[in-house]
Amino acid sequence: MFKPLPVEVSGERFTAVYHLRGSQQEAYEAAREICLEQTVELPDGLVPPGDIREHIVGRIEAFASVGDGIYRADISYAVELSGFELPQLLNVVFGNTAMKANIRVVRLDLPDVLLRAFKGPRFGREGLRDLLGAPHRALLGTALKPVGFPAHELARFAHDFALGGVDVIKDDHGLANQPIADFYERTRRCAEAVAEANLQSGGRSIYVPNVSGPVASIFDRAMFAKEAGVGGIEVAPGLVSYDVMRQLAEDDRLSLPVFSHPALLGAYLISPGHGFSYFALHGQIARLAGADAVIYTNYGGRFPTTPQDCRDLAAGTLTPMSHFKTSFPMPGGGMSLDRAPEMVEFYDRGVILLISGGLFEAGPDLIDNARRFRELVEKMG
Amino acid sequence: MFKPLPVEVSGERFTAVYHLRGSQQEAYEAAREICLEQTVELPDGLVPPGDIREHIVGRIEAFASVGDGIYRADISYAVELSGFELPQLLNVVFGNTAMKANIRVVRLDLPDVLLRAFKGPRFGREGLRDLLGAPHRALLGTALKPVGFPAHELARFAHDFALGGVDVIKDDHGLANQPIADFYERTRRCAEAVAEANLQSGGRSIYVPNVSGPVASIFDRAMFAKEAGVGGIEVAPGLVSYDVMRQLAEDDRLSLPVFSHPALLGAYLISPGHGFSYFALHGQIARLAGADAVIYTNYGGRFPTTPQDCRDLAAGTLTPMSHFKTSFPMPGGGMSLDRAPEMVEFYDRGVILLISGGLFEAGPDLIDNARRFRELVEKMG
Repeated sequence: MFKPLPVEVSGERFTAVYHLRGSQQEAYEAAREICLEQTVELPDGLVPPGDIREHIVGRIEAFASVGDGIYRADISYAVELSGFELPQLLNVVFGNTAMKANIRVVRLDLPDVLLRAFKGPRFGREGLRDLLGAPHRALLGTALKPVGFPAHELARFAHDFALGGVDVIKDDHGLANQPIADFYERTRRCAEAVAEANLQSGGRSIYVPNVSGPVASIFDRAMFAKEAGVGGIEVAPGLVSYDVMRQLAEDDRLSLPVFSHPALLGAYLISPGHGFSYFALHGQIARLAGADAVIYTNYGGRFPTTPQDCRDLAAGTLTPMSHFKTSFPMPGGGMSLDRAPEMVEFYDRGVILLISGGLFEAGPDLIDNARRFRELVEKMG
Repeated sequence: MFKPLPVEVSGERFTAVYHLRGSQQEAYEAAREICLEQTVELPDGLVPPGDIREHIVGRIEAFASVGDGIYRADISYAVELSGFELPQLLNVVFGNTAMKANIRVVRLDLPDVLLRAFKGPRFGREGLRDLLGAPHRALLGTALKPVGFPAHELARFAHDFALGGVDVIKDDHGLANQPIADFYERTRRCAEAVAEANLQSGGRSIYVPNVSGPVASIFDRAMFAKEAGVGGIEVAPGLVSYDVMRQLAEDDRLSLPVFSHPALLGAYLISPGHGFSYFALHGQIARLAGADAVIYTNYGGRFPTTPQDCRDLAAGTLTPMSHFKTSFPMPGGGMSLDRAPEMVEFYDRGVILLISGGLFEAGPDLIDNARRFRELVEKMG
């Protein structure tokens, strides 16, 4: 049917590593299908011979059992297929295959020529530590809530948390641009409150508003926040896309740390046999999209994340990716103050502890609660 | 801890219907957790009494067994929580809860006051039928491929398909803006080729390029396509977000039919106990985001979609939603020409049949293949 046409490609390829479940034969067949599905989207018999088959169709570079009925397939693709654009890169890796069961993307191996198309995290772990004046210890984070409270009340919480020594005070992701505590008033008041507390304490706490919203407004909201003096922005790529997050992160006028929130992304992680690994999604892909810190649900909280998921994620925030900076894991989701020491140990201080409900719960005086949180962390060195 | 503060809300609420798996007690507990997780994100004991508990926390309006260890919970939320913005609406419905197992959003019940914030599909089924001059019969669709072929070759395919009577000729979703057949050249050539074929045949076929790409370029690409004479645009909300699709659909300068592609969305659908139902995601949410047609994988192809999923989806494209127009199901994913009659019958002509690999495979002459496809469909009335 198709003529064998020449295709100009550089020969440079990137690799996605998949875990496939089933018998060896099923897994190998699945790997072969991925090679076609993610590229030419044609049955094998229709693939034109020559360059298309040789360079455009995905290529199984390695295939092996990794135990427990799981097989690992390393599949490479011509870098040109990505168009050097993030949405299309994700599309090649998992676009249509996401509609098939028993396939999980566990890591990406991307060559320099592809990574150079992206800036990666602007601040990274070291940059955030510099901003916050905390070169070694674990960092403290919390979330303002509940939705429904007026802006001045949320700002009071922000003030008290900052005064007590919490480094990163972010919006709960449920705070968007509702008529109650709308984005602009909330951002202005909370940024002011944190600045005031810093002045009083000599600290360097930052307020991080949630800018997730309609794409036409999101850049305006972020610029408004910048001018209001915030220290970072929170973006939920599951709601507004990884590419919007990347664009915010790469914007030189904005130049603010980006905190990735996992809303709606759970579907990619919840089944160990499907989606993306924590390493690939919250580590590598979040960094491709410029996240300086990635918020997720810690093990032992009210979500089913396991310690192994968390280790996997933390490894993804550090794994070498060309010129990319590292990013910070920011685990939360039902953590209480008494979990702080264990978390610091688990993440070896390379962590922003996100304790919000637990920080409100710890006693009637929020400044005191924040101080206890800070002491617990400082004791760990 | 928290003061009981007054909250101004209208009293209007929207409802998300969840299916919860487990024992009755587990399911009811999960429903109660959703009410908190999706709103105040506080443990029950911390929720301030008064307006926050009464109006802001989600409310279980109904709870019942629907058999097979599945329970249905109808949970309502104050419309104000959505901020009348699509990302935040999806966030309230499933944001954090997506990180928990055994919970599926099966439908949304949205009051007029909320739906008025969105335009919905601009053309809908009737509008598309008008554009294509096909008031009654099933519509024919196909995809240009494979990636790697030059633009003039893809344009030749487009020409032949149009001449043979295929209504909607779209890019394969793997065609983005790669150096080979870049977006601009491909769009220009394919739009021209289809226009030429229409002139020859008196037909009204449309070319639908894939505009999915970096958010900073996507509106430019769409406007370029409009000026090149395309008849619609293909957008993958899993890659660029539902809100970007909505913005494209609602743009009066653009005013083009929008075809939603399911790349990366599979993770929300693949597990019957998690994510969104086909009704909610590809029916209701796609329409909230302005999709005039929704591409997905049909049952009996190379994807695990079931006939029940497809019926569910089709019902979602038609379900009344205030002023919203309906949308078209566009099933594909491994369909061959001989499946056409069965598909027309299954969807009762309310369908755009997406046959691409199968159309290339049907014989060496693409015009002939397209004519056979058209005849098969016309025979069904």
